[in-house]
Amino acid sequence: MTDIGPADQHTVRRHNCALVLDTIAASPGISRAGVAARTGLTKATVSSLVDRLVTASLVREDGRQHRSGPGRRGTSLSLSPHGPHGLGVEIAVDHVTTCLIGLTGEVRDEHTRRVDNRGRSVGRVLARIAREMNEALDRAHRNGIVVGGIGVAVPGLVEAANGWVRMAPNLGWRDVDLITELHRRVAVPFGELVVGNEADLAALAELAAPRLHCEDAAPDSFVYVSGEVGVGAGIVLDGELFRGTHGFGGELGHFPVQQRGPRCSCGARGCLERLAGQDAILDRAGVDDVDTLCVRLEDGDRTAAAAARSAGRLLGTALSGVVNLLDVSTVVLGGIYARLYPWLAGPLHTELTARVVSTPWRSVDVRRSTVGPEAAVRGAAISALRTIRTDPASYLSRSSTHRKSVRTTEAGD
Amino acid sequence: MTDIGPADQHTVRRHNCALVLDTIAASPGISRAGVAARTGLTKATVSSLVDRLVTASLVREDGRQHRSGPGRRGTSLSLSPHGPHGLGVEIAVDHVTTCLIGLTGEVRDEHTRRVDNRGRSVGRVLARIAREMNEALDRAHRNGIVVGGIGVAVPGLVEAANGWVRMAPNLGWRDVDLITELHRRVAVPFGELVVGNEADLAALAELAAPRLHCEDAAPDSFVYVSGEVGVGAGIVLDGELFRGTHGFGGELGHFPVQQRGPRCSCGARGCLERLAGQDAILDRAGVDDVDTLCVRLEDGDRTAAAAARSAGRLLGTALSGVVNLLDVSTVVLGGIYARLYPWLAGPLHTELTARVVSTPWRSVDVRRSTVGPEAAVRGAAISALRTIRTDPASYLSRSSTHRKSVRTTEAGD
Repeated sequence: MTDIGPADQHTVRRHNCALVLDTIAASPGISRAGVAARTGLTKATVSSLVDRLVTASLVREDGRQHRSGPGRRGTSLSLSPHGPHGLGVEIAVDHVTTCLIGLTGEVRDEHTRRVDNRGRSVGRVLARIAREMNEALDRAHRNGIVVGGIGVAVPGLVEAANGWVRMAPNLGWRDVDLITELHRRVAVPFGELVVGNEADLAALAELAAPRLHCEDAAPDSFVYVSGEVGVGAGIVLDGELFRGTHGFGGELGHFPVQQRGPRCSCGARGCLERLAGQDAILDRAGVDDVDTLCVRLEDGDRTAAAAARSAGRLLGTALSGVVNLLDVSTVVLGGIYARLYPWLAGPLHTELTARVVSTPWRSVDVRRSTVGPEAAVRGAAISALRTIRTDPASYLSRSSTHRKSVRTTEAGD
Repeated sequence: MTDIGPADQHTVRRHNCALVLDTIAASPGISRAGVAARTGLTKATVSSLVDRLVTASLVREDGRQHRSGPGRRGTSLSLSPHGPHGLGVEIAVDHVTTCLIGLTGEVRDEHTRRVDNRGRSVGRVLARIAREMNEALDRAHRNGIVVGGIGVAVPGLVEAANGWVRMAPNLGWRDVDLITELHRRVAVPFGELVVGNEADLAALAELAAPRLHCEDAAPDSFVYVSGEVGVGAGIVLDGELFRGTHGFGGELGHFPVQQRGPRCSCGARGCLERLAGQDAILDRAGVDDVDTLCVRLEDGDRTAAAAARSAGRLLGTALSGVVNLLDVSTVVLGGIYARLYPWLAGPLHTELTARVVSTPWRSVDVRRSTVGPEAAVRGAAISALRTIRTDPASYLSRSSTHRKSVRTTEAGD
């Protein structure tokens, strides 16, 4: 139901601004008149909004449009590659990664610091993350890149309403108010700072991945499985990330796959992550790291192959439950599972075919991540850009206040 | 993105018609001017649409509105209880039930025929269903009730795109084109005939249930579990029924709860339905029917209590997987599980608390269905009404064609 009273004029302006930006993003090269025709807005409204978007570098004007029909040629509009970038940050157990992504999707300045965050105090880990973030922001500033927002990926339960990290067992975190803590340590620019679960954000990166070949394009609905020390899932339904009521959705790691299995760190028995997570696979294969595991698998080592097969079967059991419940036709394997794909895929598929009741009418496509190990950090940057894309009017007003304050400071110098 | 060209005028008219009907439904007693103010449509557009809705008995005019402010009093509008009704049909293993529901939610003419549909040919079962439907349509006609659409609930996999029943194991059905088969046997009136899974439709009834007491109101997101011979789930996310890509979602019955458990009719081992469905519970309790089981439980019979406890634990294991994945805070138990609630709830809750990783921050509410055993048939009737509510313009044109053809026939008599 639409309800447009005078009190909602502000909402309407925000909506129109996003509509104009979406229209330009969907049809690069479109003119102001073209935007007006597509959106049903008046030319005056469109022109005024486009001017503000150009001033804030969200949109660029690109000379004269080629004339394809009668009438005057207009200026060609498109998203600006020199506009605000999203800064993505991934906090993992063994590394902190940052990257910048622009509105048109180019990835810049990807930077990984290998560290061991296990067993360290929250304060020390936060200090380390803040250092990486401040350095990334400095590099962006030196290169003339405006950071329009920051997204942070965390391997744990993140409450959507407030960004609190409720639990990140492999970091040893519980109830960390990450947004406040980072604001205290990082010179966050005028954009927003958002926090999300790493599997959710990886799924977002998968969804946004360039669709060069039609058959490889991410489908509208899929489940992304992130295999690391922990196991998580990012659920995309009808082209939108699904996070659940509180943001706690996608907790695949504690799917019960063995009724009387070994006890998991969560307290329950037989959880998927305890039996088919990275540590379980390495243990069973008798190796110390994933590189060695892959070498052994390539060499046809039987113990390594049995470990991968067992993980594939258990993952297949859990995913059959997911597919029966959500009726998605695609599963995307990420993290360690993407690397082990050649050895996991067979037993996983066998289990899915046996257990998904609708397989006689539609098959389940199991593919490996097209984005790779950078999926979570890229998804974090994309989530920061999304806050701009869904509400450019707020970004415009924040950035204009920022420009004014910069001018005031410079004038006062 | 909105794209309103001349080609889309028809779409706009349909959208406006639905908007006007929604506005009247949300504010019974509203005037034409009120609808215009709420929707932003012109008074002329609103008046013309309301006149058509009144003619088709979707909306009724109710004398003069009380004047609450300055200006002329308008005629008060509301959904008509005498307008089209949805005919709901539930095809179950041991009964066929029909009911009529009006636009304002009153249930009329609920009618159950006890039958045994197991082991009968599809043709015989269809003939029986058609007889029940034709009788219900006759009764409606005799009582002056216009049936505006028919919804059919089936215990099986229903393909959303075409209404084919792909598999209904307990009826012995596979690949039945139910809509075509029913059109051949039933004098379907001008409305639409839609088919859905019984747990999905029961969830819809739960969602639409009158919210007399706030604390009992169905929440926006919940999972409805239908416990019968088969076990199914209806998933409601953000107030909408979620059916999955093909309509096959919610197949909870084949959730793997015991890795090396007994073989299920689906071919896999250890499925929830094989271990905690109606037959499994009755077997384990050593009784023949649910009534006897309930008597034994009331009497404190140990074998019966153990059977219920085991079912509660297994159901809790499966539902912990569902809640971890979907982050819904409410589970609604229906069918036999609603009757066994006092004995199931404890062990079910213990399992959820142990396995749902986010329970320290939010609890999971397990409640029994407020609608009761009629949930599926009522949801079927509601789904028929939804086809009218979401596209009243199509209903108007079908009903006007129908009225003309009736007049032509009568004139020719």
